[in-house]
Amino acid sequence: MSGIRRLVLDILKPHEPKITDLALKLTAIPNVDGVNITVYEIDKETENVKITIEGKDLDFERIRDVIEMMGGTIHSIDEVVAGKKIIEEVKTPQDRK
Amino acid sequence: MSGIRRLVLDILKPHEPKITDLALKLTAIPNVDGVNITVYEIDKETENVKITIEGKDLDFERIRDVIEMMGGTIHSIDEVVAGKKIIEEVKTPQDRK
Amino acid sequence: MSGIRRLVLDILKPHEPKITDLALKLTAIPNVDGVNITVYEIDKETENVKITIEGKDLDFERIRDVIEMMGGTIHSIDEVVAGKKIIEEVKTPQDRK
Amino acid sequence: MSGIRRLVLDILKPHEPKITDLALKLTAIPNVDGVNITVYEIDKETENVKITIEGKDLDFERIRDVIEMMGGTIHSIDEVVAGKKIIEEVKTPQDRK
Amino acid sequence: MSGIRRLVLDILKPHEPKITDLALKLTAIPNVDGVNITVYEIDKETENVKITIEGKDLDFERIRDVIEMMGGTIHSIDEVVAGKKIIEEVKTPQDRK
Amino acid sequence: MSGIRRLVLDILKPHEPKITDLALKLTAIPNVDGVNITVYEIDKETENVKITIEGKDLDFERIRDVIEMMGGTIHSIDEVVAGKKIIEEVKTPQDRK
Amino acid sequence: MSGIRRLVLDILKPHEPKITDLALKLTAIPNVDGVNITVYEIDKETENVKITIEGKDLDFERIRDVIEMMGGTIHSIDEVVAGKKIIEEVKTPQDRK
Repeated sequence: MSGIRRLVLDILKPHEPKITDLALKLTAIPNVDGVNITVYEIDKETENVKITIEGKDLDFERIRDVIEMMGGTIHSIDEVVAGKKIIEEVKTPQDRK
Repeated sequence: MSGIRRLVLDILKPHEPKITDLALKLTAIPNVDGVNITVYEIDKETENVKITIEGKDLDFERIRDVIEMMGGTIHSIDEVVAGKKIIEEVKTPQDRK
Repeated sequence: MSGIRRLVLDILKPHEPKITDLALKLTAIPNVDGVNITVYEIDKETENVKITIEGKDLDFERIRDVIEMMGGTIHSIDEVVAGKKIIEEVKTPQDRK
Repeated sequence: MSGIRRLVLDILKPHEPKITDLALKLTAIPNVDGVNITVYEIDKETENVKITIEGKDLDFERIRDVIEMMGGTIHSIDEVVAGKKIIEEVKTPQDRK
Repeated sequence: MSGIRRLVLDILKPHEPKITDLALKLTAIPNVDGVNITVYEIDKETENVKITIEGKDLDFERIRDVIEMMGGTIHSIDEVVAGKKIIEEVKTPQDRK
Repeated sequence: MSGIRRLVLDILKPHEPKITDLALKLTAIPNVDGVNITVYEIDKETENVKITIEGKDLDFERIRDVIEMMGGTIHSIDEVVAGKKIIEEVKTPQDRK
Repeated sequence: MSGIRRLVLDILKPHEPKITDLALKLTAIPNVDGVNITVYEIDKETENVKITIEGKDLDFERIRDVIEMMGGTIHSIDEVVAGKKIIEEVKTPQDRK
């Protein structure tokens, strides 16, 4: 089954620690193959970032713990991919409406 | 023939159980190769999610049962792919009108 | 020559039987390699769906019979591909006008 | 040299014979590898279709004869590709103006 | 070095000879691998076409002679590619302004 | 783990030294595989550039030191990729809002 | 390290010598693998062109000398790529603002 293969998370965090440190901490979690963090909004004290994590059997609780330990809060889980292979979201005519 | 190869479903569900749990439950169904769940609208009590499931001989009834057992309701089936190979929807000049 | 390789059909159908059943019935026709059905408009009693069928020597009459047996009506044939290989529609400056 | 490799033709035709029949007739012409026909406008008595034909040493006169025999009229030749290999139209800053 | 590898030319020409004939004449020039001609504007007496020619050591003077012999006039050279390999134009933030 | 694999940095710098010199200085840092610098705004005394750096175990402090030594200031870190493989940011329906 | 791998230059030049001649002169510079020149604005006496040059250890001074010898002026360097491999500019949410 291979469990959870990808998580896309919407995070609010203080400017420090930096996203370089957060990325390194997340790749230290077992089963994580790679982490992508982009900043989409910067405020005075905080920033909103999007985290894309890929791997096998990803452990959501542990990932959340690391994010919170680094001062971040998960606003929402925007995408989850699970299973033997990574399936992309398929656009249908309903999405174009 | 290989039966149903992909289903794209529009679902209304409560916030709990989380989409991580729903994705894992769906990958436990026989013949499911992978599941992608994206959230496209979040309300106070509920969220609208899109589920893309790929595999071979997918059993729609069983998938529906799992979704309902997790508190979700299928609003619509937006795409079905069936057969020996996965065929993508082809855009024609009629779609661009 | 390999005859007709792809058909894109615009169909009006009642909600029942479901597009999962229609897709399975269409893949049971000889020479059909795969079927993609997307829903692009849902009304009270009916839905408009787009069917993309690929294979070799596709038999249009037989495909139409299956669609009508399932309660559907073909509104239009939006694309036909025929021959030894599948040729995609080419966009030219005339299409961009 | 391999002569003409692709033709994109803008055609006006009556609804009958259908584009499935026209596609089959065109693939029966020597050197034609594949034919794609899309419908871009449907009127009461007629329809405007775009025909993309690929092959080697395509014979334009013969293709035109088949189209006219099937009741169609060539409005314009929108693209011609010729030579040892198929070259795609290249977009330049001039096209974006 | 391989000289000129691609030329994109903006041409004004009378309707006759047709672009099918012009394409065949251009592929008969030594070192030409392929020719793509698209029509982007049709007027009463003339048409504006874009010619993309690929090959090795393309001879611009000879190509111009063939175009003029066929009644065409080169309005502008919109792109030139030269060298050991074909380099595509790279979009930068300056182009998006 | 392979540490940091990609950094995307938003930089303010004087016109001199040129971005060609800055790029060469950055590729001299250990573990850097490649550097892309694009200019997205040019003012009288300064220019805003975007730097994309890829490699293995990239050392952010050292990269920042080189940028500052060349007169530049890091405005923001816009993307960080870390781990065994390079993961691209995934677009979700939340991004399209 | 392989030095500079790609340069994107914004150039103002007189109509003569033609961009075909400029492209050939630039490919004669050592280490240049290929050159792409597109015209993005044509004025009465001059034209604005974008030059994309790829190779290994590209020598900016020498490239500038050739451009100036041919009557051109470098308005700006819009992109530089350097290093062991060619890195493309990565789009982030900051670019979409």
